[in-house]
Amino acid sequence: MSSRLEQFQAFRKKMNEKILAGGHLGIRRFFNLDTAAYREGALPGKTKELLGLVASAVLRCNDCVDYHIIQCVEAGYSDAELQDALNVSLIVGGSIVIPHLRHAYETIELLRKDQAGQAR
Amino acid sequence: MSSRLEQFQAFRKKMNEKILAGGHLGIRRFFNLDTAAYREGALPGKTKELLGLVASAVLRCNDCVDYHIIQCVEAGYSDAELQDALNVSLIVGGSIVIPHLRHAYETIELLRKDQAGQAR
Amino acid sequence: MSSRLEQFQAFRKKMNEKILAGGHLGIRRFFNLDTAAYREGALPGKTKELLGLVASAVLRCNDCVDYHIIQCVEAGYSDAELQDALNVSLIVGGSIVIPHLRHAYETIELLRKDQAGQAR
Amino acid sequence: MSSRLEQFQAFRKKMNEKILAGGHLGIRRFFNLDTAAYREGALPGKTKELLGLVASAVLRCNDCVDYHIIQCVEAGYSDAELQDALNVSLIVGGSIVIPHLRHAYETIELLRKDQAGQAR
Amino acid sequence: MSSRLEQFQAFRKKMNEKILAGGHLGIRRFFNLDTAAYREGALPGKTKELLGLVASAVLRCNDCVDYHIIQCVEAGYSDAELQDALNVSLIVGGSIVIPHLRHAYETIELLRKDQAGQAR
Amino acid sequence: MSSRLEQFQAFRKKMNEKILAGGHLGIRRFFNLDTAAYREGALPGKTKELLGLVASAVLRCNDCVDYHIIQCVEAGYSDAELQDALNVSLIVGGSIVIPHLRHAYETIELLRKDQAGQAR
Repeated sequence: MSSRLEQFQAFRKKMNEKILAGGHLGIRRFFNLDTAAYREGALPGKTKELLGLVASAVLRCNDCVDYHIIQCVEAGYSDAELQDALNVSLIVGGSIVIPHLRHAYETIELLRKDQAGQAR
Repeated sequence: MSSRLEQFQAFRKKMNEKILAGGHLGIRRFFNLDTAAYREGALPGKTKELLGLVASAVLRCNDCVDYHIIQCVEAGYSDAELQDALNVSLIVGGSIVIPHLRHAYETIELLRKDQAGQAR
Repeated sequence: MSSRLEQFQAFRKKMNEKILAGGHLGIRRFFNLDTAAYREGALPGKTKELLGLVASAVLRCNDCVDYHIIQCVEAGYSDAELQDALNVSLIVGGSIVIPHLRHAYETIELLRKDQAGQAR
Repeated sequence: MSSRLEQFQAFRKKMNEKILAGGHLGIRRFFNLDTAAYREGALPGKTKELLGLVASAVLRCNDCVDYHIIQCVEAGYSDAELQDALNVSLIVGGSIVIPHLRHAYETIELLRKDQAGQAR
Repeated sequence: MSSRLEQFQAFRKKMNEKILAGGHLGIRRFFNLDTAAYREGALPGKTKELLGLVASAVLRCNDCVDYHIIQCVEAGYSDAELQDALNVSLIVGGSIVIPHLRHAYETIELLRKDQAGQAR
Repeated sequence: MSSRLEQFQAFRKKMNEKILAGGHLGIRRFFNLDTAAYREGALPGKTKELLGLVASAVLRCNDCVDYHIIQCVEAGYSDAELQDALNVSLIVGGSIVIPHLRHAYETIELLRKDQAGQAR
């Protein structure tokens, strides 16, 4: 994984552990609910990862976009499918979403390089 | 269709016609792009309607929620599937989404009554 | 209670019941977490109601503002204290908050009339 | 003026007076600063009214949109100019702005009818 | 103070001075109003710092979160109290707040290390 | 141009090219519409650049603020005019806009240094 994504993942892991160790029951329960929201349910987990990506993009949160793109790539979405979802985000959210589109495309590219490296 | 949804649809139709008749080329092209974003593409149109619903819910726009629920119900989503998508919106967007959740549930209920009436 | 607030409360109660009856476990758990967040904890429940009000005002949600003002008035806040909290919301959120300030002041006024009526 | 705009103006006036009478010095000063921001300065007041309209539209506040359209129509903007500014709002803010575009077009129409009535 | 917070404080101080030296009267007055909003009033200044933190967190502004955490730690809030306020932000604002929660926890940790260093 | 702005411009150019090369027709058309929105129309292009700046500031997007300040400086706006527009953003959007104000002032300063260097 690229150094940008590795740093994001490492910081995310370290701080999530500290938050959960912090002992606030409400926060711990929220984290559990958050994880559960993307599990198989009436909708497939794979579909819900895409919902998470679009929600993150229109709310303009790069860390959330990165997290959900990682999940979406793992779930098997193609570049064309991710772009089609990001197009919905762009239409709904407008040009203010474009900087996050640039970030998202770079993240997808970094993950594909990583996949290509592992396949060699 | 219920009187609340009928009023929304009538106002939406009337004003969209006026906006398009207003003659601003950029606005007309945006409306075309908006329609095109939900057509079959790399992702099925049905999936993209759900993306539109979740984006509308986290951005907290009741009119947009109504529009996309109407599309989603036409596309054949079940109540359980719509609730599962709205749960993602609730988790991502927080309790500030709850008033729009109430609105969305009422809209779904109104549309189901309408479907039941037509089926009789 | 005034007719505007009564209608809000009635719709809120009716739809919350339908949402909870809808059977989505994630949504039900979120509602529980939401309620729990304002209970006595490291911070007094009374302080957290004020936090809820300011969060609702800067996020510009009238229904949420109404809900938290009702809670804050029940918790015993004076008009001057509520105005001081709303001033923080106004400074942080800017003039776009003003329509919600108007709504909030009307809600406070309606609740005070109601209290005066009960005291007679 | 149309009944919808008259109600908005009357409620706005009544509640602004109550807010200012409420005696919070910070709030009163904010209202003064808000008024001052649209006065002649390095930029003409007329230009700043348009800035206020676009800011209101992308932040999706109908009351603020109405207020600034009233100011813009008084300042002498044509329909084509207002539409051109609203197009910028639509591009920057995305389709989530469309319900506010419908509202804005109706408000412009109501104000033009009012102007035509006064000119008769 | 940690290097991240020192950089933030230095940039904040330098640019605020330039903004105030820039000579726009409206901006200068806004800065004064902003400072005044957190002074003792109908509500204690300490309570209003917490309101500022929650408003910053739900509006998802890391710089604002840092500023208000610094103020809150100076005002004497414990970690458990800050976490309880951040939990309200998380519930109101949803999972999109989580990256700012991670940032906030790190900032609290950096400030506590600093306090521990000074106490030695 | 300063190293911060050069990096922004280089990343923006590189990723925009990749996005456009990515082949999603909707996204490509959106980018065209976005460019067209700031061309001469019923309103002068110069006025619309200022609308874009204010929209970017109240929506709190540093990359968008940078892009529009670059355009505004090229279009010939003075510092006092840009500050007057940013003051409208600050009043409408509140203190949460302040970190973006600091960023904007620094960007203006960097561009003026660049202009001074070219004039030598």
